[in-house]
Amino acid sequence: MSHNSFGHLFRVTTWGESHGPSIGCVVDGCPPRLALSEADIQPFLDRRRPGQSVFTTQRREPDEVRICSGVFEGVTTGTPISLIIENTDQRSKDYGEIANTYRPGHADVVYDIKYGVRDYRGGGRSSARETAMRVAAGAIARRVLGGGVVIRAALVQIGEHAIDRSRWDWDEVNRNPFFAPDAAIVPVWEQYLSAIRKAGSSVGATIEVVVEGAPAGLGAPIYGKLDADIAAALMSINAVKGVEIGDGFAVAGYTGPQNADAMRMHGNRIVFESNHAGGILGGISTGQPIVARFAVKPTSSMLTPVPSVNRQGEEVDVVTKGRHDPCVGIRAAPVGEAMMACVLADHLLRHRAQNGA
Amino acid sequence: MSHNSFGHLFRVTTWGESHGPSIGCVVDGCPPRLALSEADIQPFLDRRRPGQSVFTTQRREPDEVRICSGVFEGVTTGTPISLIIENTDQRSKDYGEIANTYRPGHADVVYDIKYGVRDYRGGGRSSARETAMRVAAGAIARRVLGGGVVIRAALVQIGEHAIDRSRWDWDEVNRNPFFAPDAAIVPVWEQYLSAIRKAGSSVGATIEVVVEGAPAGLGAPIYGKLDADIAAALMSINAVKGVEIGDGFAVAGYTGPQNADAMRMHGNRIVFESNHAGGILGGISTGQPIVARFAVKPTSSMLTPVPSVNRQGEEVDVVTKGRHDPCVGIRAAPVGEAMMACVLADHLLRHRAQNGA
Amino acid sequence: MSHNSFGHLFRVTTWGESHGPSIGCVVDGCPPRLALSEADIQPFLDRRRPGQSVFTTQRREPDEVRICSGVFEGVTTGTPISLIIENTDQRSKDYGEIANTYRPGHADVVYDIKYGVRDYRGGGRSSARETAMRVAAGAIARRVLGGGVVIRAALVQIGEHAIDRSRWDWDEVNRNPFFAPDAAIVPVWEQYLSAIRKAGSSVGATIEVVVEGAPAGLGAPIYGKLDADIAAALMSINAVKGVEIGDGFAVAGYTGPQNADAMRMHGNRIVFESNHAGGILGGISTGQPIVARFAVKPTSSMLTPVPSVNRQGEEVDVVTKGRHDPCVGIRAAPVGEAMMACVLADHLLRHRAQNGA
Amino acid sequence: MSHNSFGHLFRVTTWGESHGPSIGCVVDGCPPRLALSEADIQPFLDRRRPGQSVFTTQRREPDEVRICSGVFEGVTTGTPISLIIENTDQRSKDYGEIANTYRPGHADVVYDIKYGVRDYRGGGRSSARETAMRVAAGAIARRVLGGGVVIRAALVQIGEHAIDRSRWDWDEVNRNPFFAPDAAIVPVWEQYLSAIRKAGSSVGATIEVVVEGAPAGLGAPIYGKLDADIAAALMSINAVKGVEIGDGFAVAGYTGPQNADAMRMHGNRIVFESNHAGGILGGISTGQPIVARFAVKPTSSMLTPVPSVNRQGEEVDVVTKGRHDPCVGIRAAPVGEAMMACVLADHLLRHRAQNGA
Repeated sequence: MSHNSFGHLFRVTTWGESHGPSIGCVVDGCPPRLALSEADIQPFLDRRRPGQSVFTTQRREPDEVRICSGVFEGVTTGTPISLIIENTDQRSKDYGEIANTYRPGHADVVYDIKYGVRDYRGGGRSSARETAMRVAAGAIARRVLGGGVVIRAALVQIGEHAIDRSRWDWDEVNRNPFFAPDAAIVPVWEQYLSAIRKAGSSVGATIEVVVEGAPAGLGAPIYGKLDADIAAALMSINAVKGVEIGDGFAVAGYTGPQNADAMRMHGNRIVFESNHAGGILGGISTGQPIVARFAVKPTSSMLTPVPSVNRQGEEVDVVTKGRHDPCVGIRAAPVGEAMMACVLADHLLRHRAQNGA
Repeated sequence: MSHNSFGHLFRVTTWGESHGPSIGCVVDGCPPRLALSEADIQPFLDRRRPGQSVFTTQRREPDEVRICSGVFEGVTTGTPISLIIENTDQRSKDYGEIANTYRPGHADVVYDIKYGVRDYRGGGRSSARETAMRVAAGAIARRVLGGGVVIRAALVQIGEHAIDRSRWDWDEVNRNPFFAPDAAIVPVWEQYLSAIRKAGSSVGATIEVVVEGAPAGLGAPIYGKLDADIAAALMSINAVKGVEIGDGFAVAGYTGPQNADAMRMHGNRIVFESNHAGGILGGISTGQPIVARFAVKPTSSMLTPVPSVNRQGEEVDVVTKGRHDPCVGIRAAPVGEAMMACVLADHLLRHRAQNGA
Repeated sequence: MSHNSFGHLFRVTTWGESHGPSIGCVVDGCPPRLALSEADIQPFLDRRRPGQSVFTTQRREPDEVRICSGVFEGVTTGTPISLIIENTDQRSKDYGEIANTYRPGHADVVYDIKYGVRDYRGGGRSSARETAMRVAAGAIARRVLGGGVVIRAALVQIGEHAIDRSRWDWDEVNRNPFFAPDAAIVPVWEQYLSAIRKAGSSVGATIEVVVEGAPAGLGAPIYGKLDADIAAALMSINAVKGVEIGDGFAVAGYTGPQNADAMRMHGNRIVFESNHAGGILGGISTGQPIVARFAVKPTSSMLTPVPSVNRQGEEVDVVTKGRHDPCVGIRAAPVGEAMMACVLADHLLRHRAQNGA
Repeated sequence: MSHNSFGHLFRVTTWGESHGPSIGCVVDGCPPRLALSEADIQPFLDRRRPGQSVFTTQRREPDEVRICSGVFEGVTTGTPISLIIENTDQRSKDYGEIANTYRPGHADVVYDIKYGVRDYRGGGRSSARETAMRVAAGAIARRVLGGGVVIRAALVQIGEHAIDRSRWDWDEVNRNPFFAPDAAIVPVWEQYLSAIRKAGSSVGATIEVVVEGAPAGLGAPIYGKLDADIAAALMSINAVKGVEIGDGFAVAGYTGPQNADAMRMHGNRIVFESNHAGGILGGISTGQPIVARFAVKPTSSMLTPVPSVNRQGEEVDVVTKGRHDPCVGIRAAPVGEAMMACVLADHLLRHRAQNGA
């Protein structure tokens, strides 16, 4: 069962609420003898950390991770790795006024329906704060995969403004606050998001994750397909409403010849002349780059009032003050990378189990 | 682990190759005392069965299902339900010429890379024939859900031709060979697909699955989210490259107010004024219709030659004769329904476990 | 979840009732490229088959196994292996008179309490007939383990008569109908069991399973311990009430020095000077022989009348006619071997996953 | 997979080493709206805590548990419950001299074989310290089961001295440092254990766990049998070498009539006239008391020297100083209760899932 765990052999269990004392995760199944310290994890958390530009929530927390088990004298021991981050800037008073109302688009109404109890402090368990632990686990997953597997994410659309793919430059991604791979879109998004933010509104985004260097043969048909696991992993990120592999929904409009990735030989190695498949056939990696995209809806918490109801069954207009990202999709980029890393690490171990090293 | 099983409490394990003696599945966890016989399953298999129009494969098999265990005197006993379908029209000779070559877009190259052995008879395990067992399991899942939960799928796009949603009519879906909900698109698709077929080509499609009557509160955050499980279930269907919930990828272009589904009271019941969320918030069902879409790529097996390689590492042009659907997306509609039914049945049982009945 | 499945990476799912049309299992996760045919499985089924002496049930069935998937051209393909045995001698009329009563010591009363429905034909799902599929799966597990791992079981006690361990001879085990490793006990057991049978009674037994050649390092602490998995596997066999590893319950009476298995070096290899631990320390195999024992209660179905009740809540005396083993423990020996083989195969794959090959 | 987790619907994952900064667990699947605070857990930890008599290790730690998530305003929320205990008295210097040697009977040699790395500080992950988290999780499991289910353990044997069952008195269990249900055995054990301790030796023990008030119908055949899960749970406790249900190994010597638990009607309720079965038939609870026993070997760490080897492959004599229980079986009693509680809570939720509340 998997209420709060994902993966099978590289298995991650997360816990914690946005305004509890701490959040954490347990990574079980990590192979032994891998060098690991907090310094391997912290940089990834720093990329996701809020408060780094005006375009993300102003909640300011160091998000400093501690390894509490599973590492001895600088290497993993094969036992579960426990990671903990203290919540240092909860300010739960900010949320007092929404304790009693349901924010449209937010999970609080359904948690209340499902559990009959609700941790109203900033979203509780459903808060995007939980994704910090995904990023931390992802850093360990990268260790399992090794340096030859490069996993990177970029934003390709914010609201009505999409990038020009012909200008794609991975180096650009780390130079701007949007993880944009297109330098020319940066001022456009800055202006657009500033206006969104000033209007008390929010906006959606699309993120693309690309993996280079993943070995061929990962993925376990029929119900452990690599693309099915990627779909679940990305869809499980807060606010995601769609997932694509390779050319995604565009394939519905293709004919067979348009879709076929022809194969040729380069020496004794099979190469593909295109990658409509996004690196996955029949649920198994081909050795080409693995390409996935996911769409994130606009932040539900915003200053614009929305008709809603409260726990007493009264109709109200909800305005969410607090400190919220105008485009929650931006910080989803490192989360998408982390989920991809975890899925691949899991499948690498699964492949080893059934097929040897 | 889940190589060939899906679901947790309503757990389905399938087995069999397209050209072996039989295919089957084991459904474990089905509640006891539900009326069940082959007559409850067969109609769903008949909807998926090939050979019913010129637009699907001409392979002709009765696909007659037998219940081998788990049912006694007409009711389920709580023990595993074993279902078997004999393969009666294998004609494996048709596939002799492709035993040695890899069909672009098809899984055979990656099975060979992964396993070092390949059942080349019609796709072996990776054949869409496996989906017959999904449909059979889905019929049992419907029993678990009860008559109040209505799960229906329709094609909304074939190649470049999409339906007009304003003409949506569920009754129309069963009157045409395309599961089209729009009577006016039927002649368009007939003409279009006939041309595709005559050209030895194939084409993609998009299917929409809609669930009405599902209770609110299904779904288990964080890693058992209903939408994440739907995404995995639909992505695991052969040839699927994208999955959306509700408005899907369109949300990337929305602002917060455009995306918000306002809530109002109807008597003492919460109602939503729109359904951009597709019936799921925070991974939990809201009680609104659950809406999902998935994109199916064009059939990889076609008469149009594609550059490829063979097992000896020689470059060849592949032409796939056999008997193949020009648009494999058509028969994916009942499969999509079945996967949705299985996911919901699983979550209904999971909800009962944690929250009582 | 694991209602009807066991193992994680070498995963076995069984189905079927004693008097349904057939029984079967699906083995998922078996590595590819292993030579496998029915001829590798049948000999193990033949050892367990009833009707081979007067000391086992007179039900006569060939128990002929068919492989329905997962094997192509004589080797495993990495896809699920489906095995089926037809039930050819059900004679369900024999059981008509017990359809309405509960046999003391038998599962039928609790199945009725749990499920509110009962397949009364010969025990239905709870019948020891299900163990045929364990034996079949065990034969595949042996393939995974390879020829260097030798797994053998022997009866060490029937009723009040225990073997003399100083006469232990593995070759003797296959020469008598009791799997006895002590030739001198055979006539004693023959006379004893004949008397039990004539009296319409039944009797218990203890079985010992010994594994030689298993590699050190198998087992995954803390909750995937090899001994914990063996305990569950053996306890899941019908009628088992106790499981021991190594010296088992005797250790409660030991002092530390009595229990310690001293270690010495033989060349550059660690050797143990005794094996009180039964080859497992901290849940991980040491490389010594793995030794487990399990106790099987007397067959509950017997001619001796026992006070009981029926479904109408009336008090009755139950006499079970049918065809039953006077000592069901005898046929449990090959089942114990098979469960041990499955557990070890699962842990071998788990070890490979986390630690490489 | 289950390296460090157990249970399916009531799922416990533990982490931590004996001499790391802290140990902890995550309990996932706990139903919502149960009253819970640290005060519900601490008393059970206090019963297991070392340093309470001269017969347990002199390590002195408060073992104060903190709830870090999953509880809000005094009730469970349905989200994962994270529990943490700081390690305050590690004194890892005590273990310096054994860092390089393998203690016979202890897991350190196999951890080194398996993982190629070893946390030598006091047993690391294999230390019985981990069982504190089992006890903590067990306290939550009791909440799930409710007050009507009473789970108690008692020691029935230490070394060569067994209790007199005719004097069994549950009240006595909490009045002596041995969890002995027989007042007359207490002075015997005191004298015996004092001698063992002074001799630098250690000794084994047998613990019996009895559950009263558990509902009939718990347990999921065939591979989720209640007794199989109990066997695994108890065998997974450190140093356990045998597990019995009901009359256990004695059944091997019984005839059918001796073993049969006759059934009679009391009003409209079925009652059993004996309980050889230990409350479980066919893997399902009967409603009678559930009775299990497990044997714990003598503490491996002791002052008596034992021939062993070190990491350099040299033969050495090992003497373990540190602070160790002369009879680790004593403190296993509350651990046995806790494991039983967790197994039952898991099966209660599983039963609800398949059968309704």
